Amino acid sequence: MNAPKVRLFMPGLLVQGKSLGLSKDQIHYLANVLRLSTGSKISLFNEEFGEWVGELIELTKKLGVIRINHQLKPSKMEYGVWLAFSPLKKSRTDFIVEKATDLGIERLIPVFTEFTVPSRVNLLRLSAVAREAAEQCGRLSIPLMRKTFSLTEFIKWWPIDRLLFYGDETGNGVSLKAAIEEKKIEGNKNCGFLIGPEGGFSQYEHANLSSISHFQAIDLGPRVLRAETAAIAAISAWEILNQ
Amino acid sequence: MNAPKVRLFMPGLLVQGKSLGLSKDQIHYLANVLRLSTGSKISLFNEEFGEWVGELIELTKKLGVIRINHQLKPSKMEYGVWLAFSPLKKSRTDFIVEKATDLGIERLIPVFTEFTVPSRVNLLRLSAVAREAAEQCGRLSIPLMRKTFSLTEFIKWWPIDRLLFYGDETGNGVSLKAAIEEKKIEGNKNCGFLIGPEGGFSQYEHANLSSISHFQAIDLGPRVLRAETAAIAAISAWEILNQ
Repeated sequence: MNAPKVRLFMPGLLVQGKSLGLSKDQIHYLANVLRLSTGSKISLFNEEFGEWVGELIELTKKLGVIRINHQLKPSKMEYGVWLAFSPLKKSRTDFIVEKATDLGIERLIPVFTEFTVPSRVNLLRLSAVAREAAEQCGRLSIPLMRKTFSLTEFIKWWPIDRLLFYGDETGNGVSLKAAIEEKKIEGNKNCGFLIGPEGGFSQYEHANLSSISHFQAIDLGPRVLRAETAAIAAISAWEILNQ
Repeated sequence: MNAPKVRLFMPGLLVQGKSLGLSKDQIHYLANVLRLSTGSKISLFNEEFGEWVGELIELTKKLGVIRINHQLKPSKMEYGVWLAFSPLKKSRTDFIVEKATDLGIERLIPVFTEFTVPSRVNLLRLSAVAREAAEQCGRLSIPLMRKTFSLTEFIKWWPIDRLLFYGDETGNGVSLKAAIEEKKIEGNKNCGFLIGPEGGFSQYEHANLSSISHFQAIDLGPRVLRAETAAIAAISAWEILNQ
């Protein structure tokens, strides 16, 4: 592998010979954290233009410039499942975003439900967590971070042609394996998951969710999974069942 | 559900009418964290005697006593897959232990490999993480925490009748789904996983692992998964495939 170890997400046009200025955060990361200097090779990527090897042609405390050399990977649209989740406390929300990015989730959708504890999420911070995870795991894309929804808004917004599996902690759902087999959607990425907060969904919310024909309650096994474990377990199993 | 929300793992005999003294940590947790007082109901459990409802009959700063009332769940041996993992940095190792416990892992086995970064693990602390996770997720058992091994010792120790899937980051493994189908071991818990450190296994280690007939290299998908994501993804998929 001649690919540089350091990968930076860089939106916009990537093409041979182009020089690109780095952001303050990127300069800090390259100069102070990784202690790189001019001449170092770095890879730059985004979904529209693929991944390219660039060379640091300037790196001081205030200025960083990379010149693009050659292409490593062609552009590729990365489709994947969507994950809607109730915000949890900070480290557990970060965890969901990081792992979901590693596992190839295409969209992340924070949904506030009746039993959600935090009153807000910092979408900018979560986007940074997703970007860093994408840089580390080799993706070309960064999951799209949706503005937050209430559960009612979310139900109205969710596309009718996309199956949604929601975690049902009351044990009334079908197993994910059975759900996939029944719906015969193996290999189809056109689906998503909704994982509620620690206390599950309220009775009213359960009634709402179960009334939608393209929403399917799933049971994630015999133990009480923490919300973030449930989210990662569901998408891991999905990815591996569809490999 | 009449089950108390607070569950405490309590080794040893559990039987109606028995009074049990609480440890310093348990007293602190009940009195200062949860702010319980005498009369509160708590559930006590272990694998050998099942789960029981007890009542706090004394709780001061120094003394805590619970009297056991009636049984909630009969005793049950909880078998599950085994997870061997390279220690990572502290929070990521804790994460593996917590999620693996939630997901029903029977044994946790820390294995030091060539590219493992930490030089030691605190088994006592990891056992406490596993106990707390078991208390929260409704298990009766706590995963058995093995003393650490070197990879060479581990290979010698691993039982010959237990299939081991090891994560192969070079992409040479078969998919977990294919591995399960090929080996026709669906429904059989008699297996385990080995997940290496961030840098993967060395060439020498790969040669050693691949020479063992009941060890099977698996590929966990197209992205580079962080070690702890790989561990959780593998066992989640396994659990759900075998539901």
